[in-house]
Amino acid sequence: MAGRRADARRNYAHILEVAQDEVATRGADASLERIARVAGVGSATVRRHFPGRRALLEAVFREQTETLCAHARELMGQSDPRAALLEWLDAFAEYVASARGLATALLPDGMADRDGGTSCSTELGTAAQPLVERAARTGAVAAGVTATDLITLIVGIVLATENCTDPAAETTRLLTLALDGISPRA
Amino acid sequence: MAGRRADARRNYAHILEVAQDEVATRGADASLERIARVAGVGSATVRRHFPGRRALLEAVFREQTETLCAHARELMGQSDPRAALLEWLDAFAEYVASARGLATALLPDGMADRDGGTSCSTELGTAAQPLVERAARTGAVAAGVTATDLITLIVGIVLATENCTDPAAETTRLLTLALDGISPRA
Repeated sequence: MAGRRADARRNYAHILEVAQDEVATRGADASLERIARVAGVGSATVRRHFPGRRALLEAVFREQTETLCAHARELMGQSDPRAALLEWLDAFAEYVASARGLATALLPDGMADRDGGTSCSTELGTAAQPLVERAARTGAVAAGVTATDLITLIVGIVLATENCTDPAAETTRLLTLALDGISPRA
Repeated sequence: MAGRRADARRNYAHILEVAQDEVATRGADASLERIARVAGVGSATVRRHFPGRRALLEAVFREQTETLCAHARELMGQSDPRAALLEWLDAFAEYVASARGLATALLPDGMADRDGGTSCSTELGTAAQPLVERAARTGAVAAGVTATDLITLIVGIVLATENCTDPAAETTRLLTLALDGISPRA
């Protein structure tokens, strides 16, 4: 039994690795059939691990999501609340802009949201919320802004700039404009 | 010959009407094959009018693009530059959030941009730029912001909020945050 479980784990790890390559190349349009073929397993096996495109993308970006969440928790130790939040937003935006398919994986999704707490976007929102609240308490962030608002905004900017000549630079530019205010009230 | 040209125009008008219905129902994923079937013409005819998905979406939203461009030009007559720009941005955001497929049609597209001046997003950018520049001259808009920046930002927000419970409300909320500034410099 233990050997069989170890086999299953190795099997999953191999499929996930193939899936990560496929998503890195093709983004959110990655094909489950192709992943099965390259991994040398049946489509049914792939579908058992990833019941749909969303589940596939969530699995592919799970590890990096944990890293970004850990980064948010660490930044709570930094003394300047605004600088800490901005550092996290920059790191998050840079990674989303560079990782094909991640923006799509982070789109609000009725299903995943109802399941509660399991999606990458929910985890990132939960991890970054203390940074946002701490900055808001010092007046550095507009009242009522949530980490989810900021994640949604960044995801949108990345989606809208994907076909630009320099998507990462354009993402940073638009995010900075939104943070500073495009047309602040007089 | 004149009769034949009139036939061709009616034919195109009919296909465009079917295409508009199809895009309103299915958004950017509208099927060219389905449009041909519903319009009672061959796929080749549809593809002659719309050589690809982008061309289809551009044609479907052509009229509303003209309306939004005309609105921008009219607002140059309004005395308050900031209010005029914000009115246009609100009207634009509201329409993009309500019209399925339009956000995708407005995404930057290498091909269309190289053709120069023919895409909906280029026309909207050209029409709104004087509003942005007038507001910038009074200091009401951050220096260096272009109409294209604002269109890209709004398109991104709409794409990122499509699956929210109330996409239009969420779009307005995030746009207002970005205009006012999420975390203005102290």
